Amino acid sequence: MSINTFGNIYRLTSFGESHGVAIGGVIDGMPSGVALDTDAIQRQLDRRRPGQSAITTARSETDRVEFLSGIMDGVTTGTPIGFVVRNADHHSSDYENMRHVFRPSHADYTYNNKYGLRDHRGGGRSSARETIARVVGGAVAMQALHAIYPGVAVSAYTSRVGDVAMNGDGAWYGLDLIDSNDVRCPDSVAAEDMRRLILDVKKQGDTVGGIVTAVVRGIPAGLGEPVFGKLHAMLAAAMLSINAAKGFEYGMGFAGCCRRGSEMIDSMESRGTGERPRFLSNNSGGIQGGISNGEDIVMRVAFKPVATLLSEVATVDDSGADAVLHARGRHDPCVLPRAVPIVEAMAAMTLLDAALLNRAARI
Amino acid sequence: MSINTFGNIYRLTSFGESHGVAIGGVIDGMPSGVALDTDAIQRQLDRRRPGQSAITTARSETDRVEFLSGIMDGVTTGTPIGFVVRNADHHSSDYENMRHVFRPSHADYTYNNKYGLRDHRGGGRSSARETIARVVGGAVAMQALHAIYPGVAVSAYTSRVGDVAMNGDGAWYGLDLIDSNDVRCPDSVAAEDMRRLILDVKKQGDTVGGIVTAVVRGIPAGLGEPVFGKLHAMLAAAMLSINAAKGFEYGMGFAGCCRRGSEMIDSMESRGTGERPRFLSNNSGGIQGGISNGEDIVMRVAFKPVATLLSEVATVDDSGADAVLHARGRHDPCVLPRAVPIVEAMAAMTLLDAALLNRAARI
Amino acid sequence: MSINTFGNIYRLTSFGESHGVAIGGVIDGMPSGVALDTDAIQRQLDRRRPGQSAITTARSETDRVEFLSGIMDGVTTGTPIGFVVRNADHHSSDYENMRHVFRPSHADYTYNNKYGLRDHRGGGRSSARETIARVVGGAVAMQALHAIYPGVAVSAYTSRVGDVAMNGDGAWYGLDLIDSNDVRCPDSVAAEDMRRLILDVKKQGDTVGGIVTAVVRGIPAGLGEPVFGKLHAMLAAAMLSINAAKGFEYGMGFAGCCRRGSEMIDSMESRGTGERPRFLSNNSGGIQGGISNGEDIVMRVAFKPVATLLSEVATVDDSGADAVLHARGRHDPCVLPRAVPIVEAMAAMTLLDAALLNRAARI
Amino acid sequence: MSINTFGNIYRLTSFGESHGVAIGGVIDGMPSGVALDTDAIQRQLDRRRPGQSAITTARSETDRVEFLSGIMDGVTTGTPIGFVVRNADHHSSDYENMRHVFRPSHADYTYNNKYGLRDHRGGGRSSARETIARVVGGAVAMQALHAIYPGVAVSAYTSRVGDVAMNGDGAWYGLDLIDSNDVRCPDSVAAEDMRRLILDVKKQGDTVGGIVTAVVRGIPAGLGEPVFGKLHAMLAAAMLSINAAKGFEYGMGFAGCCRRGSEMIDSMESRGTGERPRFLSNNSGGIQGGISNGEDIVMRVAFKPVATLLSEVATVDDSGADAVLHARGRHDPCVLPRAVPIVEAMAAMTLLDAALLNRAARI
Repeated sequence: MSINTFGNIYRLTSFGESHGVAIGGVIDGMPSGVALDTDAIQRQLDRRRPGQSAITTARSETDRVEFLSGIMDGVTTGTPIGFVVRNADHHSSDYENMRHVFRPSHADYTYNNKYGLRDHRGGGRSSARETIARVVGGAVAMQALHAIYPGVAVSAYTSRVGDVAMNGDGAWYGLDLIDSNDVRCPDSVAAEDMRRLILDVKKQGDTVGGIVTAVVRGIPAGLGEPVFGKLHAMLAAAMLSINAAKGFEYGMGFAGCCRRGSEMIDSMESRGTGERPRFLSNNSGGIQGGISNGEDIVMRVAFKPVATLLSEVATVDDSGADAVLHARGRHDPCVLPRAVPIVEAMAAMTLLDAALLNRAARI
Repeated sequence: MSINTFGNIYRLTSFGESHGVAIGGVIDGMPSGVALDTDAIQRQLDRRRPGQSAITTARSETDRVEFLSGIMDGVTTGTPIGFVVRNADHHSSDYENMRHVFRPSHADYTYNNKYGLRDHRGGGRSSARETIARVVGGAVAMQALHAIYPGVAVSAYTSRVGDVAMNGDGAWYGLDLIDSNDVRCPDSVAAEDMRRLILDVKKQGDTVGGIVTAVVRGIPAGLGEPVFGKLHAMLAAAMLSINAAKGFEYGMGFAGCCRRGSEMIDSMESRGTGERPRFLSNNSGGIQGGISNGEDIVMRVAFKPVATLLSEVATVDDSGADAVLHARGRHDPCVLPRAVPIVEAMAAMTLLDAALLNRAARI
Repeated sequence: MSINTFGNIYRLTSFGESHGVAIGGVIDGMPSGVALDTDAIQRQLDRRRPGQSAITTARSETDRVEFLSGIMDGVTTGTPIGFVVRNADHHSSDYENMRHVFRPSHADYTYNNKYGLRDHRGGGRSSARETIARVVGGAVAMQALHAIYPGVAVSAYTSRVGDVAMNGDGAWYGLDLIDSNDVRCPDSVAAEDMRRLILDVKKQGDTVGGIVTAVVRGIPAGLGEPVFGKLHAMLAAAMLSINAAKGFEYGMGFAGCCRRGSEMIDSMESRGTGERPRFLSNNSGGIQGGISNGEDIVMRVAFKPVATLLSEVATVDDSGADAVLHARGRHDPCVLPRAVPIVEAMAAMTLLDAALLNRAARI
Repeated sequence: MSINTFGNIYRLTSFGESHGVAIGGVIDGMPSGVALDTDAIQRQLDRRRPGQSAITTARSETDRVEFLSGIMDGVTTGTPIGFVVRNADHHSSDYENMRHVFRPSHADYTYNNKYGLRDHRGGGRSSARETIARVVGGAVAMQALHAIYPGVAVSAYTSRVGDVAMNGDGAWYGLDLIDSNDVRCPDSVAAEDMRRLILDVKKQGDTVGGIVTAVVRGIPAGLGEPVFGKLHAMLAAAMLSINAAKGFEYGMGFAGCCRRGSEMIDSMESRGTGERPRFLSNNSGGIQGGISNGEDIVMRVAFKPVATLLSEVATVDDSGADAVLHARGRHDPCVLPRAVPIVEAMAAMTLLDAALLNRAARI
């Protein structure tokens, strides 16, 4: 059952609403014996934090994580890690006009249909503040992954905003380069265009979408479960569970549809008997038959433009009558920069889970 | 744990290899009281069957399903439905030259790394013959869905093959139109071009990819579980678990990245108090915040060109030495026509599961 | 996976160690629309609280629960309910002498073998303080059960302490009678003997075991899943997951082994066509074939004497050398009185889960 | 979800009714690389088979298992193992008089309430023929367990029938001794008394209950998951899911209730630094804090007398009217002898699952 729990062995259960007391979660299945670097976890939260730059929402939250269990003398004990991040800067009154009115293209109408009621303040549970728990869960997972595969490294970045696409999409880039600009795009020329586009769109009270690319290095061959638990299927579910995600592809993805098999085959050649073979290309995106092949895992996640506009939109209220909504809440004109650490987090959790599952594959 | 079991409440557990005794499965969680039309199930298997037309593989299998349990006097009893489809037309000797050689861009190398061994005959478990179980599971699910929501209907079709795209992609089409040609494309002009392309590619010993679009009508608002069990995340995992799938999108999908929020918002207007509102557009693809909104659910699945070429390819063997492979097995030059009923099946199972889960949402 | 998560649809994920920052959890799958009485939840925590009487441990904790999410205007919203109970009265220094020494018949040696390390302070995660989360989860579940089945009522009580057994074991008793004495035994004569026994044992620095009986009234026929999810199997797993539980039985239980079928059959007679039949006896304990039959559900849970003695015991340390342990921590001489609300909690969570699962049984 | 699937990593999904086409299942999560001894599997089925002696039911079934997948050249490949056992000797007409009449203390009334209908022939899914799948799943698991822990061995036997209890209950006995008599009791004197009791009861058209004891040797310390997945809780759920089981205990079990802590503590002494300590007693039954401690795991399962009597019993029919039932089906006067291999099977599956889960506990 995958409602508010993610994963099979390494599992994150999350809770919390935008304007509730706190966002938090429980990490279960964390292996014992990992010396946790809590500063590294907080750094990932800071990369997700609202208000970090001119191109993100003005909501001001320090988003400090408090760990409640599962760690002794700085080392994981194998017991569940509970954590909370208190909400501080609610402006719940901003949302009073939405108590009975549905924001179009949001979760308002659908939550109301599902549950018969909803928390209208800041989107309640459907708010992207929920992703705080993912970032914590992912940052912890990353440290376990490192302990298992010292060479593992995730490179996630904004590869497209609106009609501005970077050059060199699909390669691996270091964090310094990625975080050298607010947009988190390693192509500094494109980044500047993206930044301008976002500010322009913001000025108009509009929003814009884009793509995050993630490349994972250092995962050995063998991870992923054939058939229903294919590694890319698990990654797809992980990524599409992020707010505003609309599409997922790996390797050649949608572009591969237009190609011939002979153009797409990743031939192999020997590096010597007993050695891992060399792959002459990576159209497979590091996954074949649902199982990692040791090459870089390459994937892309499409994000829609946020549906909150600072202009009047036609909608209905919960009695079914016509209404007009003029949103006042604080929102991102483009989610991409802040989506980057969330994509990293989902990748780390999925891969650690796959690594732990894989321990049961052989006698 | 999602290795060979799909679903939460309605669950398919599948087994079987390409050249083993049989393919089969167990359907658990089927509600009692459904009068099963087994002919309709067999018809879906026939649509997936190899050898059905000039553009599919020549392997000849009747693929008759035998039900072993869970049905009494033609009605489901609520107990698990076991079923088997015997394999008949093995040509295992075709694969003898692959016992130690890895087919590039297949699951051979990765299975070997995961399990330390593999069944090399026809791809073993990684063969698309495994999807027989999905088609049975989906056809049974479809009948339960119909019993719950009489207006439900799935329309899946080939919308692209290589660089040939249909007109009218994303609309709902009837089965008669879709199955009026071998390609299963409701645009008969494009279908003819696609057919020609596939035959051309086949003649060259090559293969080609494409896209299947699926549109589901008649699902009420409220299905899907927020956060990690978003309806589109469940659909993505379902679709990307199909062999050769490389990407998934819903609603505006990847194209939405380039658009502004103001172009994408699905405004609503009243149909009268107490009535379901009218959505003025469906860029959301029928899902908002991970929950269905009552509009058509629209999604696309990208399939790569099959990696089996009838020409020599460079590879390595399981000792790590260089090798050359000349495949002899029987394969589809393009999986799209046969992928259509599999996409339908995965959609039906996912939606039934979501419908049953949703019964627990309220007191 | 059932490590720190209990349940299928209604699910409690718990965290926290005896001497950590807090005990807490996340309740997922709570149906929306239940007006929560938080005082009733706190009352159950108070019944579990240490230091409530002369026959329980002297550790002093107020154990106030703080809810962090999932409730709006006092009503459940269908989103996860996060909660924490802060730890206050640690005496971690009491446990310094146990850092390297294993308490015999506790979880010390086994945790160390499993995880390579352990939190030695107050038993860490293996402490019965973990049951705080169960009591909260159970008290919330009970309110949902009431909303679904207004007549439902759980009666749990101490039916045996050491060699003192009550009269009238297996019947249903009201809370007033049960809580009329510290032991929580509705037979006031036996209760007085039990109380004396516990105080006597305590004086000797020893401990004593016993039995909790639970009777659930008002559950309709049909709950429980045949085969591996039999209602009594789910209840057994629930009850045996409580600290110090050693055995579970339902209906005639172990005593039934000595009986003939003809003595055990629960005959039925008509109450009139279309009416629920009358059962002439309840040897089945309200469950037949793993499914509730509408009669009272009757079960018993055996608890061992706590393994912490206030005298010297022979043991080993984590280097494998002989050691002598003289425990100094504060412990219950008999867990039975405080086990009663925990048994209630596990019963309520299991039955609510079964009730929600059962909604999927039929079309 | 645990309806017809058992286990977390090593998982058995079963299907089939008493008078359906076949009983079968799918074993998922079997590690690759185990050379399967299929004769050993069939031998366990033969020990469960009806008609094997004068004290079991006269139904005649050869119960030959056919494996359909997951094995190549006699070795497990890591893919799911499908299997079927065809039903042969139905006497469905024996059950025609039960189409509308509920057998008291069976699952008839409760299935009907749950599903709105039921398969009345031989109990349908509630028949103990379902346990065929368990025996296959358990025999396969046993071979994997042996491959992981070469010293592992399960000893299960009938320790009580009615009021006849064996001497030496709780010790480990070899298969030769256990199977030296029809009752499967290693105390040959008691076995003879039990046999006489069963024949006596059978002659009266009555039935009798009893206890199976199981002792597992060779499991190392560390298996079992703390809190909700305690090893004994998993074993309890496993055992209580067997037809006719009414109680479960481990170690001192219910008898421990009457004892003092000082009598129950399992002291430890050093075998030398770095060696596994010696436990001076085993009142814990090999499990402490829900985790194995390396000692023999000792448990007992109570079985009720079968509810099918060959005499008239008062009941009701599915219209709610009074009825009288005179059963004609073939049934065991005592399930104990045939329950022994089923208890073994459930123990093997649970322990293998725990062993595979445990691989994820540490970095």
